Amino acid sequence: MKKHNFNAGPSILPEVVYEKTARAILDFNGTGLSILSISHRSKEFDEVMAQADSLLRELLDIPDNYKIIFIGGGASTHFFEVPANFLNTKAGYVNTGVWAKKAIKEAKRYGQTEVVASSEDRNFTYIPKGFDIPADLDYLHITTNNTIYGTEYTADLDSPVPVIADMSSDILSRPRDVSKYAMIYGGAQKNLAPAGVTFAIIREDMLDRIQRDLPTMVDYRTHVTNNSMFNTPPVFAIYALTETLNWLKSIGGVPEIYRRNQEKAALLYDEIDRNPLFVGTATEEDRSLMNICFVMAEGYEELAPEFLEFAKSQGMVGIKGHRLVGGFRASCYNALPKESVEALVACMQEFARKHGK
Amino acid sequence: MKKHNFNAGPSILPEVVYEKTARAILDFNGTGLSILSISHRSKEFDEVMAQADSLLRELLDIPDNYKIIFIGGGASTHFFEVPANFLNTKAGYVNTGVWAKKAIKEAKRYGQTEVVASSEDRNFTYIPKGFDIPADLDYLHITTNNTIYGTEYTADLDSPVPVIADMSSDILSRPRDVSKYAMIYGGAQKNLAPAGVTFAIIREDMLDRIQRDLPTMVDYRTHVTNNSMFNTPPVFAIYALTETLNWLKSIGGVPEIYRRNQEKAALLYDEIDRNPLFVGTATEEDRSLMNICFVMAEGYEELAPEFLEFAKSQGMVGIKGHRLVGGFRASCYNALPKESVEALVACMQEFARKHGK
Repeated sequence: MKKHNFNAGPSILPEVVYEKTARAILDFNGTGLSILSISHRSKEFDEVMAQADSLLRELLDIPDNYKIIFIGGGASTHFFEVPANFLNTKAGYVNTGVWAKKAIKEAKRYGQTEVVASSEDRNFTYIPKGFDIPADLDYLHITTNNTIYGTEYTADLDSPVPVIADMSSDILSRPRDVSKYAMIYGGAQKNLAPAGVTFAIIREDMLDRIQRDLPTMVDYRTHVTNNSMFNTPPVFAIYALTETLNWLKSIGGVPEIYRRNQEKAALLYDEIDRNPLFVGTATEEDRSLMNICFVMAEGYEELAPEFLEFAKSQGMVGIKGHRLVGGFRASCYNALPKESVEALVACMQEFARKHGK
Repeated sequence: MKKHNFNAGPSILPEVVYEKTARAILDFNGTGLSILSISHRSKEFDEVMAQADSLLRELLDIPDNYKIIFIGGGASTHFFEVPANFLNTKAGYVNTGVWAKKAIKEAKRYGQTEVVASSEDRNFTYIPKGFDIPADLDYLHITTNNTIYGTEYTADLDSPVPVIADMSSDILSRPRDVSKYAMIYGGAQKNLAPAGVTFAIIREDMLDRIQRDLPTMVDYRTHVTNNSMFNTPPVFAIYALTETLNWLKSIGGVPEIYRRNQEKAALLYDEIDRNPLFVGTATEEDRSLMNICFVMAEGYEELAPEFLEFAKSQGMVGIKGHRLVGGFRASCYNALPKESVEALVACMQEFARKHGK
């Protein structure tokens, strides 16, 4: 049976990326070598790296005064590297859930860390808005999309201090004005690549603010200066990332994927709002296009395991909600086809019919 | 033309690993999902991780009081994490070249760092022996194989203090007595996997010595406690690693690969020693089984570019020596077939004949 991959991450990638990476493992671009076994100092890999940089730059419309690095680890690596590099006196964080909290925890080790806004009061079901941003912060850190709670910043923030954003789970899914951010980073394993590589887009002037004597691998200048080649980069993951960017460009870039993501999300949110058995968990205006969270409606709670089983029997993968929210989560990343959302909607409708609704 | 992959790393992996990983990208074990898109919390990946642990344990005969972690980054990550975790007062390092120096540089940031022995006096062409190891060291750090200079520790050290070894480039290539090490680590991109994952084998009692308040990702206890799943691990690289271990086990484990590696190395060193055009660079007793370095013999220096071109025309890949040593380097990692070494030897012989030798 056809599987519909709603995994929260690592998650679905475009079919063409599977085809190209599988082929490149057997023979990379006619070199007679596997992509797993080429030198990261070869001209073939230089080209992959250069393409990754130029494609991301083009697709996100990244201004020239930003540097891009692709390094190993995960967003969790940047959680401590961001304050290690940039927290000299005081940093501000917006607490929108688990990932934001993890970033806050690491920052505290490096200096004063102020939570300037939080949605913890309502289990992170919304994005705080209209809060004051102290002008003396080294930076303000936000998490643009919150996978566990299904909330997302729908607009870029205006801020008197540099904004640093974890965009692990919504990079390239909707338009963002990069010039409003001092740094954007994330793990690549949602919209960009398989797990094992991170991206960071850093405004050049930020690098002049680094004051600590940091381990070479932790200092962002190391990776900027060496074009992400200070040490052996995760070659395969970067190649897959490049092919994902090529796919995104081929279908029309961010404008087209945004249209598709809106369409997919509307299909599913409409069903959630219409179907008497289900109810969404996130505040409507902050609903994520990427992670769509819902639970059984009041009075139907006991049907949750049955729905999960039924959905599974219809080929749905990864729709169990995070334990902190419960219920269901359909992650609808860039590469998820509309057909998968339609299949899930059909599933919900049939389940309602089975229960006389 | 058939390519012979002598790359120093990322390097050749077993054919069966290419086949299995390519297949797993299109469909992982009949799940209908790609290995690039499965959840790291899935039971399928749990099994991969468990297998990686048990196979490495079996192949290296790792005692029960050692923990194994597989995390992202590279050996360069461990260069600072080792002293961050274990350098409380004073550490000793043996300087056997570029990689050892990089490790030393990172250690200095954390405390007193004593170079207890060095082979820098003769451009790192040998492994220091018989040196005194101060009894007050937190640990002694060695680099068991030196890719750039082609030297290797052929025996395990006896030491009054915990020995921590970077085995990036000779792990599982020859017998090692793990019980003589407090920690063994490395980047996996030589004998184990594609680039993007590291391994660390840590004796449990070492974890009790950690005194610093470290970033969560830097503290080894984080990864030990969470079985390498604190954050999203590099799923694909770990899968490839597991399949490489499966291959090694299937051919007879370390005893058999050691036999093969000795046989391959003997073939090439014999030719270097016999062929009047070439000369080896490493001291004979410290010659590496993994990276075989040689240069043009005295009087023939100007033939180097011609030999490189000739070898390339015969399908040899990656045999140019590191710029610090010059000449040639044939990396003969576990997966390199004997046929490739024979092809290189034939190449050297034909080149000598062309030049009347």
